[in-house]
Amino acid sequence: MGLSTRIETAIASAVALGQGRGADGRFSTPPKLGEALHYATAPGGARIRPTICLSVAMACGDDRPGLSDAAAAALEVIHCASLVHDDLPCFDDADVRRGKPSVHRAFSEPLAVLTGDSLIVMAFEILARQSHLAPDRVTQLILTLAQRTGMPGGICAGQGWESEDQVDLSAYHQAKTGALFIAATQMGAIAAGQEAEPWFELGARIGEAFQVADDLRDALYDAETLGKPAGQDDLHGRPNAVTEFGVQGAIQRLKDILGGAISSIPSCPGEAQLAEMVRMYAERLTPVVSPSRVPGE
Amino acid sequence: MGLSTRIETAIASAVALGQGRGADGRFSTPPKLGEALHYATAPGGARIRPTICLSVAMACGDDRPGLSDAAAAALEVIHCASLVHDDLPCFDDADVRRGKPSVHRAFSEPLAVLTGDSLIVMAFEILARQSHLAPDRVTQLILTLAQRTGMPGGICAGQGWESEDQVDLSAYHQAKTGALFIAATQMGAIAAGQEAEPWFELGARIGEAFQVADDLRDALYDAETLGKPAGQDDLHGRPNAVTEFGVQGAIQRLKDILGGAISSIPSCPGEAQLAEMVRMYAERLTPVVSPSRVPGE
Repeated sequence: MGLSTRIETAIASAVALGQGRGADGRFSTPPKLGEALHYATAPGGARIRPTICLSVAMACGDDRPGLSDAAAAALEVIHCASLVHDDLPCFDDADVRRGKPSVHRAFSEPLAVLTGDSLIVMAFEILARQSHLAPDRVTQLILTLAQRTGMPGGICAGQGWESEDQVDLSAYHQAKTGALFIAATQMGAIAAGQEAEPWFELGARIGEAFQVADDLRDALYDAETLGKPAGQDDLHGRPNAVTEFGVQGAIQRLKDILGGAISSIPSCPGEAQLAEMVRMYAERLTPVVSPSRVPGE
Repeated sequence: MGLSTRIETAIASAVALGQGRGADGRFSTPPKLGEALHYATAPGGARIRPTICLSVAMACGDDRPGLSDAAAAALEVIHCASLVHDDLPCFDDADVRRGKPSVHRAFSEPLAVLTGDSLIVMAFEILARQSHLAPDRVTQLILTLAQRTGMPGGICAGQGWESEDQVDLSAYHQAKTGALFIAATQMGAIAAGQEAEPWFELGARIGEAFQVADDLRDALYDAETLGKPAGQDDLHGRPNAVTEFGVQGAIQRLKDILGGAISSIPSCPGEAQLAEMVRMYAERLTPVVSPSRVPGE
């Protein structure tokens, strides 16, 4: 089975259980919220976090594929939850996400809050369900995911910095974008029975690269290309690599970070293939910029 | 250590970790969100769910007190999260909770959303941290808490029913109020190494009693006595036992349910003490109604 099929299958079966359509038969469940769980998770975006997670697991031998699939699905479900809540009127007030109406626009604000909440819970349930495969790894996966999602060091903390007058920029970026990439590499390793610590740097660097790429896209592309509102960082006065380094400077920085990411890959059976995957993402992440589209340069 | 001290200590130490004030030293963490985590969890309400959880664990022998404390704290933290999100403008729009401004009033709406999210994550982290005590019990505790919190059968599902035109009343009540009481009795049993299933009925019946008692308080008491807005069920057209049975009928129903709860207690070393605790709650839950305060009777 290809990576993409493994990821989609794991997410779809978790969502089906959440909708009450699982092995236990038909559960009496509120239909709109059930539909919203599906709407918020499919069709997905690039599924970049679960792809990294599975790639690391495979590079480490992937001796419990069911656990790697659960780790990948749990990560993506947390990411989807964060998108639903970030789009809410009190945050980005975004009407569009992945080219379709955001959850609170398509359903309602109460259902969007509950969709995010339910998806957060679902992520931990996905992992706990695989306890029979290796209970020690499962609790370590849950702990890692929790630490990279909540407070004080997860994506909630990252979003929380946006309510502060004085922002610790390094803590902000690592928590807001880096956290789930660190979770991705570390959870891939844990799922395959390896130590998490050596995989920290790869995740942190991919996260950093992703943040710079996102800043570039936000500054350069229009809403139609993005499938979501453009120019949001400028609008909300958020720190942005393009403001700091200019467009060409930010592109160079992206390349440097990804080079560092590749050289940080710990020694493992699938090291070469993993480096290839990071290179592929580097290509995809780097925007093609024609001189006429570079504002202020 | 008394029940109340065990519960408060477990919650306070989890919140301190969430604020970055844990054993790992001072973490760079967004201060307002950190403060909001504390504000949302202390001083607490009656702590009824964790008290039930610990009481069941003790009735079952409580051979891993650290695990019972974690279960109790996780449950209460989920309950606090649900209060923060339920109070949001898009749900109850409540200005007051536990006699002080609700989290979105005291901080902001973004911080209230993030407080709820962070507390949900924290609950699972509290449990995963105790993995060394008994990994199998920990994953079972996490699974039970997830199932009673999310979709299709947890408090998120319960809240989700309020967005439906056609409501399955039995599923609604069991998910909205019953779920965390079922989690309380079952998690107490699991923490002490016992089967969860025999403890379902006690939790379900206490939950049912609590719902009826809440309906009575909502209909009879004013906002000052409640520490939150009164008459909310009427206002939001929510199903309510007082509308269905009248005040005296609802009080009789409350007594019947609690009688059933006591007789459902599974055979265990601390059976008699547990029955005593349920009786004590029954006294506390039953409102004292003078005839002049009974509307429409």
